[in-house]
Amino acid sequence: MTVVELIERKRDGGTLTGNEIRWLIDAYTDGTVTDYQMSAMVMAVFIRGLNPEELSVWTEAMLASGDVLELSAIPGRKVDKHSTGGVGDKISIPLAPIVGACGVKIPMMSGRGLGHTGGTLDKLETIPGFTTSFTADEFASLLGAHGVVLGGQSEHLVPADRKLYALRDATGTVPTIPLIASSIMSKKLAEDLDGLVLDVKFGSGAFMTDYENARRLAETMVDIGSLRGTRVVALLTNMHQPLGREVGNASEIRESIETLHGRGPDDITELTYALGAEMLMLGGAASSYDEAHQQMIDAVESGRALDKFAEIVTAQGGDASVLDHPERLPSAEHQDVITAPTAGWIARCDARSIGVGAMRLGAGRERKEDEIDPGVGVTVEAKVGDRVEAGDVLGRIHWNDRYALGVAMPLIGDAWEISEKPVGPLQLIVDRMESQP
Amino acid sequence: MTVVELIERKRDGGTLTGNEIRWLIDAYTDGTVTDYQMSAMVMAVFIRGLNPEELSVWTEAMLASGDVLELSAIPGRKVDKHSTGGVGDKISIPLAPIVGACGVKIPMMSGRGLGHTGGTLDKLETIPGFTTSFTADEFASLLGAHGVVLGGQSEHLVPADRKLYALRDATGTVPTIPLIASSIMSKKLAEDLDGLVLDVKFGSGAFMTDYENARRLAETMVDIGSLRGTRVVALLTNMHQPLGREVGNASEIRESIETLHGRGPDDITELTYALGAEMLMLGGAASSYDEAHQQMIDAVESGRALDKFAEIVTAQGGDASVLDHPERLPSAEHQDVITAPTAGWIARCDARSIGVGAMRLGAGRERKEDEIDPGVGVTVEAKVGDRVEAGDVLGRIHWNDRYALGVAMPLIGDAWEISEKPVGPLQLIVDRMESQP
Repeated sequence: MTVVELIERKRDGGTLTGNEIRWLIDAYTDGTVTDYQMSAMVMAVFIRGLNPEELSVWTEAMLASGDVLELSAIPGRKVDKHSTGGVGDKISIPLAPIVGACGVKIPMMSGRGLGHTGGTLDKLETIPGFTTSFTADEFASLLGAHGVVLGGQSEHLVPADRKLYALRDATGTVPTIPLIASSIMSKKLAEDLDGLVLDVKFGSGAFMTDYENARRLAETMVDIGSLRGTRVVALLTNMHQPLGREVGNASEIRESIETLHGRGPDDITELTYALGAEMLMLGGAASSYDEAHQQMIDAVESGRALDKFAEIVTAQGGDASVLDHPERLPSAEHQDVITAPTAGWIARCDARSIGVGAMRLGAGRERKEDEIDPGVGVTVEAKVGDRVEAGDVLGRIHWNDRYALGVAMPLIGDAWEISEKPVGPLQLIVDRMESQP
Repeated sequence: MTVVELIERKRDGGTLTGNEIRWLIDAYTDGTVTDYQMSAMVMAVFIRGLNPEELSVWTEAMLASGDVLELSAIPGRKVDKHSTGGVGDKISIPLAPIVGACGVKIPMMSGRGLGHTGGTLDKLETIPGFTTSFTADEFASLLGAHGVVLGGQSEHLVPADRKLYALRDATGTVPTIPLIASSIMSKKLAEDLDGLVLDVKFGSGAFMTDYENARRLAETMVDIGSLRGTRVVALLTNMHQPLGREVGNASEIRESIETLHGRGPDDITELTYALGAEMLMLGGAASSYDEAHQQMIDAVESGRALDKFAEIVTAQGGDASVLDHPERLPSAEHQDVITAPTAGWIARCDARSIGVGAMRLGAGRERKEDEIDPGVGVTVEAKVGDRVEAGDVLGRIHWNDRYALGVAMPLIGDAWEISEKPVGPLQLIVDRMESQP
């Protein structure tokens, strides 16, 4: 077996066997297969595709390329949630303590933000002292003691994905559903999960702007779960407008704390509870949606969810006093507002414009090596379906750098569109699918 | 403009502009575009193709990547012939002296053999002292003085092709007509030609086994000539069986000398004169096929063609006395014969089996770095359509290494198929096409 033979077969639309795919991924990880050979293979995969069996083996082979968490010694089912990323998506931060307070173990590993979508780790690290980098042993011990870990992905986890993603990024082969699905699933399955809930977003602020592509991605990831025997549930959710009111880093922690107090924006609360209910069912802590919802409401109303967050923050080295004093979290020095030029109903509140604008303010990274300004961001005061009068505030821009403001302002100002006729609110959760046992 | 954008466009079936293609080839040649980016691009080109305008610019950009011969100071039209390669194809060796003796300038640059097809340079270098490596100045000066040069391709000629071919070889992207055509044409057009005759072969012993693919390759190369304004004629010729009787290196020189004496095998003579007539017409030395044929017959019968070969050999440092004493050329120590098991007509005399067999004997290279044994080879005694009796010799194997013989024998022995019913001879020249002015 030579790599050229495998490339030729895929180039001509053929199928690779399990052994061939495992050999390919191993040989690429150890350097026997070169970058230039893998990029030819990946372009062939991009154009010709992978069938479900090929994709399942590809994902497993990626997963096997590095360390895998070993959590079986910790009692209880382990469930995680993964979002494909969106503007204002801080759901993991209230979700993990709420579900953790209801007794399901959550070995969550999150990423940093790149482009217009924020990263959970960047947000969490605005809490003074909070650390997210752990060895496998530390990670397991935190999970055992507190039931929830909000960690980062270690370098030893799925090294094939790290290497392959950098290659795809440089060779125009990122946006293809099988490779996106295997990249996400290999990293999540390396967490030794009993169940996985996926929040697959579509809309201007999502990685997949188009509903049909997002749906295909969700189906593909659910199919990987079915073939592997890992229970996977996917919700398809709307990312045409930002989630919640806050787009930034520290501001999203403040909004998460509000949600843990039961005072979060409606969309954040709706999505947190919807994803949480799936996690509780997969985790065996609830047998129906109603039961799951009641457990989560109890956890929030009793304060146990916020206490769980304080416990996690303290366990991970953070200063939990900010949960009582969120004003101590970083904030920006200046504020400008965007106001409505006319009265009417908000017809559009574009997630991408606001996300890119917030990135330009310093809330996100254009390149991996960029630094984040934790205090800057945008507060979204009016969302699709809202009635506004002329002069009402649509958004607030929190900024530190006047030049960055100049770049961000036209982007953010352009996000809202006002209609003379009433417009209904956007449906947030559009579809649901689950793996076959 | 970034390379990723260009890769993405070609990946999705789009078209690249002239400036984009020129930039791409330049940036790849100087290393700005990496091997792994170019291999992704080439896989996209493999699957999506290049339209005629893209291909024309691609070829010109390859051509412009290095030195180009400057022969305008030498009076007379310059014409070359290129063959896509076959088993026993020594046509260049009698052809160049015959056409040169008729007054057309031939700045021929040939390659070495790889795989089952022999290389003209390897054959010429069996003449003691014969050299093929010249600077551009030496090359031009030889052409001016003798009208014919039988040289090798310099390292400075079309470096983009050298680099790209090695990449394609390692990434399963060799067999695609646009890239094969641009590879051949860029190297030939770097010879500063007024006209080019292509011998595009199909059949088991050819690079393109299939007639339709060979035809498309010929059309594609002729189209490159049309778009560029260089006159190109292509003959499509049969390579199901070896050309001539000899398959080897020194033995093919001996057969070429016989052809220059007017005693060559029928197929060698037919193809030499057919290609030569095209060269004489393109070179302005003849205005009709009949006139061209008569000139070539005169050149051979008068001895001028053989004298021209002696002149070239001497000019290139070789010992021309071997032309009078071909027995001084290397030969093998041992000979085995393959005989006909039954009487009948030869239905098949497989070029590929004989070519691979001869390569295993040492007459060709499996890898670039392999050494050639100049004396070994195969003499083909019976060709398609010949009547044989049981026990007649079909082929003679000239060998030096018993182990190599053991590997080659079953391959070569398997080449012939005998039919009980009469079989007609193969048609050698099947089609002809030419560029549009």
